[in-house]
Amino acid sequence: MASTDALELPLLTPGVLSPRYETGTLPEFHRMLAAAGSRIFTRTERIALESLDGWHRDPDSGWLRHRSGRFFSIEGLRARVAGAPVAEWCQPIINQPETGILGILIKEFGGVPHCLMQLKAEPGNRGGLQLSPTVQATRSNYTGVHGGKAVPYLDYFRQAPAHRVIADIRQSEQGSWFLRKRNRNMIVTTTDDVPEQDGFSWLSLRQVLRLLRHDDLVNMDTRTVLSCLPLAPGGRPRQPGRDDGFTAALLRSCDPAAGSRHPGREIRSWITEVRSRTEVDVESAPLDRLAGWRQDGRSVRHDSGRFFEVIGVRVESAGREVGGWTQPMLATVEDGLLALLVTRIDGVLHALMHLRVEPGLVDVAELAPTVQATVGNYAELPAAARPPFLDEVLAAGPEAIRFDSMLSDEGGRFFQVSNRHLIVETGTAHRHPDYRWMPVHQLAGLLRHCHYLNVQARSLVACLYGLLAESAARDATTGTAAADGAPEQKG
Amino acid sequence: MASTDALELPLLTPGVLSPRYETGTLPEFHRMLAAAGSRIFTRTERIALESLDGWHRDPDSGWLRHRSGRFFSIEGLRARVAGAPVAEWCQPIINQPETGILGILIKEFGGVPHCLMQLKAEPGNRGGLQLSPTVQATRSNYTGVHGGKAVPYLDYFRQAPAHRVIADIRQSEQGSWFLRKRNRNMIVTTTDDVPEQDGFSWLSLRQVLRLLRHDDLVNMDTRTVLSCLPLAPGGRPRQPGRDDGFTAALLRSCDPAAGSRHPGREIRSWITEVRSRTEVDVESAPLDRLAGWRQDGRSVRHDSGRFFEVIGVRVESAGREVGGWTQPMLATVEDGLLALLVTRIDGVLHALMHLRVEPGLVDVAELAPTVQATVGNYAELPAAARPPFLDEVLAAGPEAIRFDSMLSDEGGRFFQVSNRHLIVETGTAHRHPDYRWMPVHQLAGLLRHCHYLNVQARSLVACLYGLLAESAARDATTGTAAADGAPEQKG
Repeated sequence: MASTDALELPLLTPGVLSPRYETGTLPEFHRMLAAAGSRIFTRTERIALESLDGWHRDPDSGWLRHRSGRFFSIEGLRARVAGAPVAEWCQPIINQPETGILGILIKEFGGVPHCLMQLKAEPGNRGGLQLSPTVQATRSNYTGVHGGKAVPYLDYFRQAPAHRVIADIRQSEQGSWFLRKRNRNMIVTTTDDVPEQDGFSWLSLRQVLRLLRHDDLVNMDTRTVLSCLPLAPGGRPRQPGRDDGFTAALLRSCDPAAGSRHPGREIRSWITEVRSRTEVDVESAPLDRLAGWRQDGRSVRHDSGRFFEVIGVRVESAGREVGGWTQPMLATVEDGLLALLVTRIDGVLHALMHLRVEPGLVDVAELAPTVQATVGNYAELPAAARPPFLDEVLAAGPEAIRFDSMLSDEGGRFFQVSNRHLIVETGTAHRHPDYRWMPVHQLAGLLRHCHYLNVQARSLVACLYGLLAESAARDATTGTAAADGAPEQKG
Repeated sequence: MASTDALELPLLTPGVLSPRYETGTLPEFHRMLAAAGSRIFTRTERIALESLDGWHRDPDSGWLRHRSGRFFSIEGLRARVAGAPVAEWCQPIINQPETGILGILIKEFGGVPHCLMQLKAEPGNRGGLQLSPTVQATRSNYTGVHGGKAVPYLDYFRQAPAHRVIADIRQSEQGSWFLRKRNRNMIVTTTDDVPEQDGFSWLSLRQVLRLLRHDDLVNMDTRTVLSCLPLAPGGRPRQPGRDDGFTAALLRSCDPAAGSRHPGREIRSWITEVRSRTEVDVESAPLDRLAGWRQDGRSVRHDSGRFFEVIGVRVESAGREVGGWTQPMLATVEDGLLALLVTRIDGVLHALMHLRVEPGLVDVAELAPTVQATVGNYAELPAAARPPFLDEVLAAGPEAIRFDSMLSDEGGRFFQVSNRHLIVETGTAHRHPDYRWMPVHQLAGLLRHCHYLNVQARSLVACLYGLLAESAARDATTGTAAADGAPEQKG
């Protein structure tokens, strides 16, 4: 009988972030990535929505649907949020009711966990190949509706024995762009001899986390799965202290035994209160007569030119996917900003989380980054009308910026959409009724359940783990360069 | 800073279930209840749906709505559950989109927690007055739509300081009869001097739990709120051992430090898997042309005469509610059965939970009792077609039956609807793919979050706490009778 909710691969266990015994080095990885890019790629070209092949407009609603009735559809939505600054609006929204699997397979080589990563060239990817989970499959994928090949490694997830499942939870995706979409985020371990198929590569967990510093390389699905890594108390792999104490505060923040500004029940009560009080009314609307949006057969875009646009693309693909198709995608006018303010409270790093209402969420509101915004939308507005903390984040000096990378949204639905991910340290423990300071372990506890952290917040949690992995590299006795040059130890 | 998720009123803390220092005795309570019944009552008379005053049929859908647009409506629903024994059906369903508050106010008298209970005569109550939470209010109630008086004690919940909130979570209600209904379950403590208004009474938590043995007295809303009581490790108020070890196994089961058959992540992964795999498709349907249901202006009932019926009632009320109204209600043909099989695994009591799909749940499936059924529906079917474990539960001898009471569904929507609540001990740790054995502390952990336990399971969790309260009474040195006769200690 299990005496506790024991976890086999908590992030802080000694060895998990060790640089020793990695199967390869990062320079080797980058060479391999460049070589793979010549075999695995997509060529994506914008076309008019009315030129899409296999997609049609529903005559009543104007919704864009695939002729198979599967994949996803682009629908119209009318949203009302009582008391919000914008209390009512219409928008296109993606409806993809199937729950797909995003799964990372983990195996230890020399005691060090490695992730089987897929080099995937999604049509909307910025920068070509990105690092995807081992499996990134909608139900249409793995039931063969798309006419493609079988999904490699799928059975490791669909038939995982219970004791091999480290994390398994459905999580939401962009609540402004998807209608109640959830994907099943899974982390599964194996001791099998698992060969790397073409386009797949074993990287250490530490390496994947460190690659978050590279713009537009670790894809959104990988980031959300990694945010579901369990934490466990007691495992502090190394003595920090070679920086200004930030790493020590981050390590403490990841320890479930550490304190928190608010007890968990206060956080849950706050979430309950906001979800009970907020009246969100979402209803379907015809896409072809959507107030505030114009369409000319090429695309659907907002009258103001802001927000996002529904476009068509033609895709030619080389690699394991079928060779060519067309589909609608979402494109943005400007990159987004996702920023987390962090501060030390009694020596424990806390992040300032916003409880944010989005029309496509299953349950009203989820915890979001401190700032989740498209900055240009607010450029001409007075400071009072700008999102809280936006100006503090934008004014942060280099010494306060702990993390700063561009990271892409999922390239199967979003065309070249990327967000600047910023982690900014502040000395001020701000108070605001819609925000709460929370340590990482509290976020990790909520990530065992669905509907708590939105995908943008989860992406920044992965970036916090990236900072942990960097500290591990810095503190290793062999030094960063030597570790990256260590001999191969592939099992 | 909170060092742990500390809770101020865990059920097992010494004193919480102590029989000493109660403010009154149970015989006194029953005398008071009888006296109150002459002042506070409803007279409810069945009338035809078409005679309802203030309610109309929507001409397009046939749905029954209140002219205010609030309260609730009776709608039609078409449900499809791929692969289920009945894969598609239609039914009427109650839509009550507002999240109400069910709140119990707790105050210590002489160190013993007491609950401010309301004696409420809901129109559908079996047995007249039932024990309701301090506040049981829809938003329409407390925003005055029903034209009644202000809701007493409401501000203790709406304006509760964070550190006074013991539990605060939205929980589902009957997923077969309500469309995605949630109510906010709250437990709040106070140190104020709170006078008992007419129809309200301070009872010790132990007394309320012991009154679960009385048929149709502790109402559904009280039971669901009590199921959200927190547990905490270490607090074992007394030495059990005067029974056959059942109480000791139950006490261990309530201790979060005790073991469990499955670690929590296995339970969560199982829930994720079922929710991901199960395709439930629910859509609105016209009520007046609902396949399989007949209506004659008096009621809506199933062609088979089974399941439930939508009826009209005229209510005359004395007490604090307004004097008279009409409304639709649901009535059942036969009482239901809610049964929990329990067994000892390594000395820890475990309950056999069923992961049950219901069309009105927000998230596909929730944990349900071992058996949740209307027995008569299966009377003529062969054993193989009957719900799993039904026959074992019905055949249980008196020595195996640990709890057996009739307990009512909520009397504001359900007319004389009651379920037999059975807790049956078995020596067999059955294995079944749709069921898992779980100790009480694991259920209590999930009850900190929404969408895990359905209302029927929560009701039986409250009954398990009732068994704890009985053991406290049995083990008290003063003996049960003496404790019930103890002098008043009201503060």
